[in-house]
Formats: sequence, C-alpha cells, structure tokens
Amino acid sequence: MANWFRRRSRRTDAPRIRPRSEDLATTKLDLHEFTPPLAEFLGRAAYAQLMIFENLSRGVANAPTTAGKAAISRAAEVSIAKHRALAEEITRSGGSVAGAMEPYTAAIDEFDRRTRGADWYETLVAAYLTAGFLDDFYARLASGLPATERDRIEAIYADREGEAVLRDQLNQELADNPRLAARMAVWGRRLVGDTMLAARSALTLSANKKSDEARVEPVFTELIAAHTRRMDALGLTA
Amino acid sequence: MANWFRRRSRRTDAPRIRPRSEDLATTKLDLHEFTPPLAEFLGRAAYAQLMIFENLSRGVANAPTTAGKAAISRAAEVSIAKHRALAEEITRSGGSVAGAMEPYTAAIDEFDRRTRGADWYETLVAAYLTAGFLDDFYARLASGLPATERDRIEAIYADREGEAVLRDQLNQELADNPRLAARMAVWGRRLVGDTMLAARSALTLSANKKSDEARVEPVFTELIAAHTRRMDALGLTA
Repeated sequence: MANWFRRRSRRTDAPRIRPRSEDLATTKLDLHEFTPPLAEFLGRAAYAQLMIFENLSRGVANAPTTAGKAAISRAAEVSIAKHRALAEEITRSGGSVAGAMEPYTAAIDEFDRRTRGADWYETLVAAYLTAGFLDDFYARLASGLPATERDRIEAIYADREGEAVLRDQLNQELADNPRLAARMAVWGRRLVGDTMLAARSALTLSANKKSDEARVEPVFTELIAAHTRRMDALGLTA
Repeated sequence: MANWFRRRSRRTDAPRIRPRSEDLATTKLDLHEFTPPLAEFLGRAAYAQLMIFENLSRGVANAPTTAGKAAISRAAEVSIAKHRALAEEITRSGGSVAGAMEPYTAAIDEFDRRTRGADWYETLVAAYLTAGFLDDFYARLASGLPATERDRIEAIYADREGEAVLRDQLNQELADNPRLAARMAVWGRRLVGDTMLAARSALTLSANKKSDEARVEPVFTELIAAHTRRMDALGLTA
C-alpha cells in the first residue's frame, strides 16, 4: 500500500500516454497491454475465484443466523459458478484445471491469509470488497485476451448478483450492529492495499517500468474509486 | 443404530402390508405415507442440503492438493445448486427460506456435528456417504408431495454428478494412501446409524407405530443396500 501511495504521489509527473485516458468519464480504462498469456490469466483468475468461494462458504458455515446463511449461500453459488466457468475455459484451451492453477496457489493463498478477517463480519466485508475489486480487475485484464475468449470471460465477470447479495446482507448486519461500522471501515481501508498488490502481481509488465506505471495507474485509480463506492454502499468511509 | 438392529431382528414377524414390497427387485419402494407437509419437507431438505454444501466447501478449503480442490469444488457446486432449487421451491410456495429452515436447524446441526469427521478424508467420505443416503431418502419421501412439487423435487435429487465426483476423488485418495482404507471403512459403518436416525426424524409417523415400522423398514433396507454399494464403490467393506 505504501508502495502504491508513493507511486500515486508522482502522478503529476507521469506522461499521459494512452489517448483513452482522456475518456475517463465515459469509457472504462482497460489493461489490455498487460494481459498475461491465456493459460496464466485463467490459472490465476480461476484460483482467485476459488479462494473467494472458500471465504464465502466459510461465511455460510459461520453465519450467526439462518437468514444470513441462506443469503450468503447465494453469493457462494455465484462465485463457484464463476470459478467453474473459468475452469471450463481452461479445459477448453487444452489445460488441466489443477495444473493451470498450481503455479499461482502460493501467492493467492498468502493474499487470502492476509485478507481473511478475524471474524465473520470481517470475512464477509472482505468477500464483498476483494471479490468486487478482483472482478473489476480481471474483467479489465481480460481485454487483452484473444477476442473469442475475451468475450466469454468478460461475460463471466459481468454477473454481479453475488456482490448485490453481500451488500444487502452487510447493510442488514450493520443496521443490527451499528457499533461494527468503525471497525469495518478500518478493515475495508486495509484490504485495498493487499488487494491492489495481488492484482498488480497478475500484470505482465514490460522492461520500461516507468512507462508501465503511467499506464497502469489510471486504471487502478478507477478500481479504487469503485472500491470506495462499494464502501459507500455500506455507509462506511473509505 | 442399535435401535434399528433391534427392529431388524423382528423383521420376520412384521406384517407385509404393502403389495409393492413384492416388486422389490424392479420397483423402488417409496415413503409416500410418511411425507410431511410441503413446508416441513422443504425446510428440512433445504437445510440438510446446505449442511452438505458446508461440508463439501470445507472439503474444498482443506484439500491437500489443488487437483482435489478443483474436483471437490464441482461437488460443492452441485450441492449448492440443489439447495438453491429447494430454496426456490420454498419461495414459490410462499415461505421465507430462512423461516422454513429454522425449525430444523438444531437437529441437523447436531447430526452435522456427529458426522463431520476428524480430518479431510473423513469429511469427504461423510459427504459422499451421507449426501448419497439423504438424496435417496428425500427423493423417496418426496413421493407423497402434491404431484407438481413432487416432480420438480424428484428432478432435483436425480442429479448424481456430485456423488460421482466424490467417488472418483476418494478412489484416487485411497489409491494414493492405501492405509486409509481400514479407518474409512470403520467411519463409513459408523455414519450409517446417525444418517438413518436423521432420516427417520423427517418421517411423519402415524399413531400405529408397529404398522409404521413394518412399512418403513423395507425402504430403509433398500437405503442401506445403496449405502453398502457406495462403500463397495470405494473398495471398503460395509
């Protein structure tokens, strides 16, 4: 996170190379220049989605109420369906699902360890915020894939029902336990740093790091703005 | 379990009331006389399926290999889809999903506690054996529901892909760790008692207990035969 803020402080110096950044208000910036090869994209994305599913399913198991269990199970279902769709892309491309994910499990497990949360509420907030961020991120990173795969993969990430379910459930929990808000706001702010680092590690950067930074930064600015809107939707200050 | 064996020892004395029991080889016996009202059926069945999902998702999280994780995630997906389909039946019938499940959570949680297993292998064997048993059981219990709901609910239970995935994964694990077989055989035999008690508690019995027993027993004999076949499929002696 410190690293990112250091970069952010240099922002005015960064050359504005990509014309599309002028269209920031109307066009989503993407990351097509930094998209890894399909096998790597799918291996990372599928395992990250499996991690999100694991956290949501822990959220189902530990829910303090049957209503919470029922609601979060829907979010878990959406997330495992996304994992399955990504796994099918791996199979379709001739890979083995486990083999494609294996090189990325250690780094994603470490990210998971850092963002899992100390209790059910933190787990749920993390699932809502990190899954939302990573869905946004991978959807933009997919833009550099071959067109056929890109369209299918963007469609996978277009399903935001899980996010809506978690938002509604969290709003309910925060209404029932207003004293949670301060702790959840701190937790939400902490998560963005680790999530950004996890996302950045999936970029295939060039030899020209300074130029890369200038191009990547506006995208991350948008991703962070979306993170802030997600926190706003819970009434938490980012 | 002891209770069941006591009943079994009286089997020859039991009056053979249902003509269909003559067709045992070709016709599946059902439990239509003991089907609870729709709301109770759905509440129990949906929560039991959620418990199966929770165990499978724990199986995903704790899998010792990425290949195991990938395989079991498919079984978890099938089970959450079954839960969702049952939850939709609750909504369709005008109930709330959490409200319908609530009266049955304590008993099913207790069943879960007893059958969860001490490690990943036991959890997986339990998920395979108890889910298979309960799918068989609820499919037969559904026969007494109104025709429209019955057909849709029987269709939910007809999906056995999850069972096949678990069987294949467990066969792989047992091949890799042959010393597990003896412990898993003991565990599988233990599970049948608790699973039968859980199933029996879902039956709506009449005032005539002796007559009920005589009618229920052949169905449970079939369910146990199916349990034995599931253990056979793992090379375990039931």
